[in-house]
Amino acid sequence: MTDTSSNQMWGGRFAAGPDAIMEAINASIGFDQRMAAQDIAGSRAHAAMLAATGIVSDSDAAAMREGLLTVLSEIEGGTFAFSSALEDIHMNVEARLKEIIGEPAGRLHTGRSRNDQVATDFKLWVRDQIDAAISGIEALIAALLDQAEAGAEWVMPGFTHLQTAQPVTWGHHMMAYVEMLGRDRSRFVDARARMNECPLGAAALAGTSFPIDREMTAQALGFDRPAANSLDAVSDRDFALDFLSAASICAMHLSRFAEELVIWSSAQFRFVTLSDRFSTGSSIMPQKKNPDAAELIRAKIGRIFGANVALMTVMKGLPLAYSKDMQEDKEQVFDAADNLMLALAAMEGMVKDMSANVANLEAAAGAGFSTATDLADWLVRALNMPFRDAHHVTGSLVALAESKGCDLPDLSLSEMQSVHGAITDEVFGVLGVHNSVASRVSYGGTAPEQVRTQIARWREVMS
Amino acid sequence: MTDTSSNQMWGGRFAAGPDAIMEAINASIGFDQRMAAQDIAGSRAHAAMLAATGIVSDSDAAAMREGLLTVLSEIEGGTFAFSSALEDIHMNVEARLKEIIGEPAGRLHTGRSRNDQVATDFKLWVRDQIDAAISGIEALIAALLDQAEAGAEWVMPGFTHLQTAQPVTWGHHMMAYVEMLGRDRSRFVDARARMNECPLGAAALAGTSFPIDREMTAQALGFDRPAANSLDAVSDRDFALDFLSAASICAMHLSRFAEELVIWSSAQFRFVTLSDRFSTGSSIMPQKKNPDAAELIRAKIGRIFGANVALMTVMKGLPLAYSKDMQEDKEQVFDAADNLMLALAAMEGMVKDMSANVANLEAAAGAGFSTATDLADWLVRALNMPFRDAHHVTGSLVALAESKGCDLPDLSLSEMQSVHGAITDEVFGVLGVHNSVASRVSYGGTAPEQVRTQIARWREVMS
Amino acid sequence: MTDTSSNQMWGGRFAAGPDAIMEAINASIGFDQRMAAQDIAGSRAHAAMLAATGIVSDSDAAAMREGLLTVLSEIEGGTFAFSSALEDIHMNVEARLKEIIGEPAGRLHTGRSRNDQVATDFKLWVRDQIDAAISGIEALIAALLDQAEAGAEWVMPGFTHLQTAQPVTWGHHMMAYVEMLGRDRSRFVDARARMNECPLGAAALAGTSFPIDREMTAQALGFDRPAANSLDAVSDRDFALDFLSAASICAMHLSRFAEELVIWSSAQFRFVTLSDRFSTGSSIMPQKKNPDAAELIRAKIGRIFGANVALMTVMKGLPLAYSKDMQEDKEQVFDAADNLMLALAAMEGMVKDMSANVANLEAAAGAGFSTATDLADWLVRALNMPFRDAHHVTGSLVALAESKGCDLPDLSLSEMQSVHGAITDEVFGVLGVHNSVASRVSYGGTAPEQVRTQIARWREVMS
Amino acid sequence: MTDTSSNQMWGGRFAAGPDAIMEAINASIGFDQRMAAQDIAGSRAHAAMLAATGIVSDSDAAAMREGLLTVLSEIEGGTFAFSSALEDIHMNVEARLKEIIGEPAGRLHTGRSRNDQVATDFKLWVRDQIDAAISGIEALIAALLDQAEAGAEWVMPGFTHLQTAQPVTWGHHMMAYVEMLGRDRSRFVDARARMNECPLGAAALAGTSFPIDREMTAQALGFDRPAANSLDAVSDRDFALDFLSAASICAMHLSRFAEELVIWSSAQFRFVTLSDRFSTGSSIMPQKKNPDAAELIRAKIGRIFGANVALMTVMKGLPLAYSKDMQEDKEQVFDAADNLMLALAAMEGMVKDMSANVANLEAAAGAGFSTATDLADWLVRALNMPFRDAHHVTGSLVALAESKGCDLPDLSLSEMQSVHGAITDEVFGVLGVHNSVASRVSYGGTAPEQVRTQIARWREVMS
Repeated sequence: MTDTSSNQMWGGRFAAGPDAIMEAINASIGFDQRMAAQDIAGSRAHAAMLAATGIVSDSDAAAMREGLLTVLSEIEGGTFAFSSALEDIHMNVEARLKEIIGEPAGRLHTGRSRNDQVATDFKLWVRDQIDAAISGIEALIAALLDQAEAGAEWVMPGFTHLQTAQPVTWGHHMMAYVEMLGRDRSRFVDARARMNECPLGAAALAGTSFPIDREMTAQALGFDRPAANSLDAVSDRDFALDFLSAASICAMHLSRFAEELVIWSSAQFRFVTLSDRFSTGSSIMPQKKNPDAAELIRAKIGRIFGANVALMTVMKGLPLAYSKDMQEDKEQVFDAADNLMLALAAMEGMVKDMSANVANLEAAAGAGFSTATDLADWLVRALNMPFRDAHHVTGSLVALAESKGCDLPDLSLSEMQSVHGAITDEVFGVLGVHNSVASRVSYGGTAPEQVRTQIARWREVMS
Repeated sequence: MTDTSSNQMWGGRFAAGPDAIMEAINASIGFDQRMAAQDIAGSRAHAAMLAATGIVSDSDAAAMREGLLTVLSEIEGGTFAFSSALEDIHMNVEARLKEIIGEPAGRLHTGRSRNDQVATDFKLWVRDQIDAAISGIEALIAALLDQAEAGAEWVMPGFTHLQTAQPVTWGHHMMAYVEMLGRDRSRFVDARARMNECPLGAAALAGTSFPIDREMTAQALGFDRPAANSLDAVSDRDFALDFLSAASICAMHLSRFAEELVIWSSAQFRFVTLSDRFSTGSSIMPQKKNPDAAELIRAKIGRIFGANVALMTVMKGLPLAYSKDMQEDKEQVFDAADNLMLALAAMEGMVKDMSANVANLEAAAGAGFSTATDLADWLVRALNMPFRDAHHVTGSLVALAESKGCDLPDLSLSEMQSVHGAITDEVFGVLGVHNSVASRVSYGGTAPEQVRTQIARWREVMS
Repeated sequence: MTDTSSNQMWGGRFAAGPDAIMEAINASIGFDQRMAAQDIAGSRAHAAMLAATGIVSDSDAAAMREGLLTVLSEIEGGTFAFSSALEDIHMNVEARLKEIIGEPAGRLHTGRSRNDQVATDFKLWVRDQIDAAISGIEALIAALLDQAEAGAEWVMPGFTHLQTAQPVTWGHHMMAYVEMLGRDRSRFVDARARMNECPLGAAALAGTSFPIDREMTAQALGFDRPAANSLDAVSDRDFALDFLSAASICAMHLSRFAEELVIWSSAQFRFVTLSDRFSTGSSIMPQKKNPDAAELIRAKIGRIFGANVALMTVMKGLPLAYSKDMQEDKEQVFDAADNLMLALAAMEGMVKDMSANVANLEAAAGAGFSTATDLADWLVRALNMPFRDAHHVTGSLVALAESKGCDLPDLSLSEMQSVHGAITDEVFGVLGVHNSVASRVSYGGTAPEQVRTQIARWREVMS
Repeated sequence: MTDTSSNQMWGGRFAAGPDAIMEAINASIGFDQRMAAQDIAGSRAHAAMLAATGIVSDSDAAAMREGLLTVLSEIEGGTFAFSSALEDIHMNVEARLKEIIGEPAGRLHTGRSRNDQVATDFKLWVRDQIDAAISGIEALIAALLDQAEAGAEWVMPGFTHLQTAQPVTWGHHMMAYVEMLGRDRSRFVDARARMNECPLGAAALAGTSFPIDREMTAQALGFDRPAANSLDAVSDRDFALDFLSAASICAMHLSRFAEELVIWSSAQFRFVTLSDRFSTGSSIMPQKKNPDAAELIRAKIGRIFGANVALMTVMKGLPLAYSKDMQEDKEQVFDAADNLMLALAAMEGMVKDMSANVANLEAAAGAGFSTATDLADWLVRALNMPFRDAHHVTGSLVALAESKGCDLPDLSLSEMQSVHGAITDEVFGVLGVHNSVASRVSYGGTAPEQVRTQIARWREVMS
């Protein structure tokens, strides 16, 4: 939804007849101008290569390269007049270049075509977004590591089915998201490595008879190598789909955390207090804080995964090589990238600002006989009971405590022995939420020492 | 992707810190200004009702209504200064109204809230789009009816599996799309009827204690009745999903026709010639015409159905009543609506302009023993053969013709009788593509008379 | 994933070579046997019509119709031997019919083809599921009406952003879902009406030269009319997409309610107690109840909407008429239908069984100054204050109450007057949650009398 | 769609009341029995570790490990009686183990829970499928390399917009799919590396106080390391989403090739002949061959990507740690995996069997002035014309040839010089399709030598 199209839409939609309709559906300059910097970088690399291989003269190449910088500065300065009649960013740049440098501009397109040019530009743009996503993820990981470190020992309920299951530590919970984001990062890193082959020089679809040097342009643009099949190079949009897949899974992780923040902010939970900056208030209920940013982050998976569906649907069943359908790729990726970056930044801000309500967390952690598993494990360990039997004894003890309206540590030893005679007072050492979390020292467990080990590992990874 | 956000994105993304991030993720004025006309219509109806029920004075209501018209004319004239700090279109309009009419503006919000206001505005906007979609569909149906009428007798291959199966008529093929579009129209009509309940007066979520008259505002805004549950009224987005579902299925139909046009335009098929207006050429191959508009229409199902997926994902698992997640509804519907209207208009233009290559169609229709079924049916009818036996005999005759390098009508009677002695020369009356299509007079069949019957029926429906 | 294919998959996958692969990908009998009853009903109607029009003899038709009943009883009795070599349900039934009645079986296929036969069978199957969905929805509505009636006066918090906003009644909340389900029902009713055109007699794609009577078969099978274009009739799957769209939106509604039930069942909320039948326990924590059924219902939108995406993707860009791609339609719809019916039944069971914790609901309803809006409305109404000013005064009163650690009704009149002198003791009549909900008598509002009006209206509609 | 559920569905759906409904929605044994081998492998590794760490005795562990093998052989032998009352594969196996070995079976569950057990089983299953997918891809690549080698010099039209653009070689076209499949393979390899962390020992969600050795079980099961956060380990389904994303993109590639095969098999194209094994015939038109397998492969992207959408939707917004919603993960992945393997195998079979119609390909390659670009490139190279000017001259020459009804090489030198005087007879060396493809020697271009270089490179990679 560019300016151009929204203006055209606004009044008298399509009243101007078929030519206006064709321009509206066909021209891409309304959105692909976002790739101006990439287009110019690609053309400058191509010009340098044309000179190095003797396809154009050094002076022509110099004029092209200089002129392209002028065009870039006009675009960045906001003085460039984009023309819809020139359809796309590539033609807009080339036309302006011709105005600036004259005849040599006509030689720039030697040995390439719009098909490999657009593939190259878009890959460069997506690659930049991958780098931005990785930065955004790392910043969010850093914020989570700080929260985890602060609360490595704070106890809170660990939920399954949103029912209290066992106590865990705040740090442990934060670190679960660090693991998810670590996989997100690895997914973007893999996508970047897989896509980093340069389409430039594939020409329209068949390669070219000019003695171009594809290694040179690939290297100049930071690619690992030229793409190895020209038909594939111009009809491949895997790199965009890889970006959208990785972005979708990342957005899914953010939606889970956002859901928790919304629930934790409710009057019934009060586990966290979000900052005013990421909430909105009510003029009438000054104490009320709506977790708007969390809700919007929760929603972002919709449009990001929607974009993934959109592009996958577009690509379904397209014969080789380039088809115009593929022009529908950019707006989806642009929108998904903008919203992923925004969601990551907003989540980072919220995580930095939020404060855990430690007392509430601890109180909730102990409710619901949450250390029953610890008791059962003690029965197995100390009395060598089979696991399933230990469960049965524990169930009876919980029922006893419930009938007396108290928690497990509040039962007396004799009350416990009335259920199973072999219980000793050593059992009290495993009851209580702090004992519980301290005991879970298996690798990756919730014990503060384990959490600190993982924080240290991640700080190392991130450094 | 509004101006605002794309400018914010452009350089130094989010460098301005948390406040800028929150504004970027939270403000909707960048896109919801498209609902300005609907917002003002809703407020004017509300003001009139507040006066009629005595909740505000007649003079206050008159000032509001007049002032709102002024705001509308400023927006339509392009002189209105939208403010991101005021977040959304509703606050922008109200703030400007206060500047224009002063204190009475503060009474406009009596008995309503932003939640029912946004639901009302968006419903009105979607309802307008339903009407636009119906118009676009009807225009395309009209273009198809003209094509069907012109070619009611032209024969062409009927394909299954893209293999020639039986001859059909051009008119019959066009009318298949009329049926699909007829269902699309009915889907939009149903959606309009189902959504046409007015949320205004649901207030924040619980209704109001002011003696408002919801029937009056509902009627003034063209709704059939007020929505019957205030919690539902502010948290319902079914109307947007109904629109997106109907738009997606319609776009799927267009993708099928577009695929056919692309295939039919290939050098190998040459069934149709698309006009220059909806094609693009090549500076180097003047005879080449790329069916760009058809390809782009084929692709539109991607973004339209992607929007459907996006909004469905957003709505999944949202507790009642309003959650901020729901703000993600509008951009998806705006984009899908724009692209559906564009695709319908472009398809209408292409259908009007395209010319069938009648000779090529007829030549292709007769290839591949396409009247073998007619022969088999004759065997059943004339010789009372069971269907499965008739298939067997026909197979032998086709094999004979193939071995002789001729078509079925080119076999002599004695050659036919060598396969089955009871065949008479009456059989030649059912061979040949024109005989074939003329014979298929069952209701809805491909015979020209059947096609003309259906054209007449549809002209009646559309009139 | 039928028996057949899973067995084939289990060991030595595809080791048997290309023929086994082709059978595995091509045969549909593993799943389309679910349409046996529909297939036989369609064939019986066709046979009767063939006799009525004189295309086959009465005795042949009688033999066919009788024989088909025998086949049906074998299938229903579990004694029918399905054969993968015969590919699909249609060929399996026809082959068996031939064994039973001999030669006349070969005449059954006169004037039809597998393309119109499969379209007819599948439409009949989907139509049955629409009827089942409507029944399931109505049963759930009935359960909700009972809950609404029981709790028409129980107060609970009305949430926006999962933050307490205003008190509402339990009955009002239940009725919000009745409205959603009412739209779901209407969506299925519309889909049924739109799809109820009979494809039978469209033959392969072009109609037939036999003098068939399509009105007769359409009527016999409960269709409103024959489909009007034979090309469309065999290549249309809109009816399946309409079913999936309606099912997806319905599943989305269920996911919202399921989410609420999960949250409401948490130790922090304790708004409802789900029955043991729809929960699972823990051997170790006897008091723990996991809301498994609610979680699974919440998840069902995934596979149901996934099926919608799957079929839409399959249909994208398919040229007319029948393509084998369309064989992928059935498993998606079967799975979506099974899971929708299951989710509706499970939700109905849960709603019937669940008990609201009325005291907890009421306590939560009053927290968070939830009647601040009522106070503001009183200021507008009683003191003629503009709405925005009333908000400001209310904010000050809430701040005062908060600073004193009390609720709004606990402020004295003089304390109130210290904020705004014109406040009278009439104000206390609008504070308190019961006063609040009782006052919201606008149409569709949360007042018990409004809720009862809506219950009565729905009982009328459902009767 | 398991046996169990389809039987339950068949008659009297849910008539048996709430308990039957709960069993139908809750039990997973109908599908998760496919993970039996993985479940038993996981338990055997766990038992060995429990003994090694002294948590259970060596003799108990030996009994467990032996007993589990017995269970496995019963399942593989088809003699195991699965019970729906025991809900899932884990409980079915454990209950049977208890019958076989008695009391020690109760100690197997020490230090683990169903949450980490199911995550481990499912990961092992998905990992096996990744390996199978890689094998399937490699087999298809091998078939394509053989086709490419055979036809490294065959010329065919290179299409853009399905319009003839430039001649390419058959080998080059085949190699485009090798590149796509190479990326698919790399995607699965990356997914495997990312997911290869062992959840076992995460226990319910918090780790355990037993002195387990997670490195040992991880290694025994072929994992690279234990998962580092127990909360994440039990609530992570990224590995399934990574599988589905990779499978979806691979299926998209297959859909493109399948579309080409369908189009190429049409009477109008006749570029390839598919084998009878992967086609279906018509009893009535013996010469007709429907490309059923290609169409079904084209459709598979629907259900595979539908599964991706389904699971992504399920995971959206789920709070930590395990929720029952996640039980919906398996059927989606099972179905997608089965269909991906089937599609790969069918495509491999088709590619091996198909024969290119070389003469038709070459004739089509030369149509439409497909070497106009070569002519323009020659003008640039030989006459140092700017690219845009060369396009203009070429356009005039094409127009001249078109007006004379001949192809470019058929123009005389003087006719060419009438358009541009500097043209020499050297130009004829670049016209003609064989000259054209031979000249495109840029890296990745369509020249036979380039194609052979790439074949050699891929044979090296695959060896």
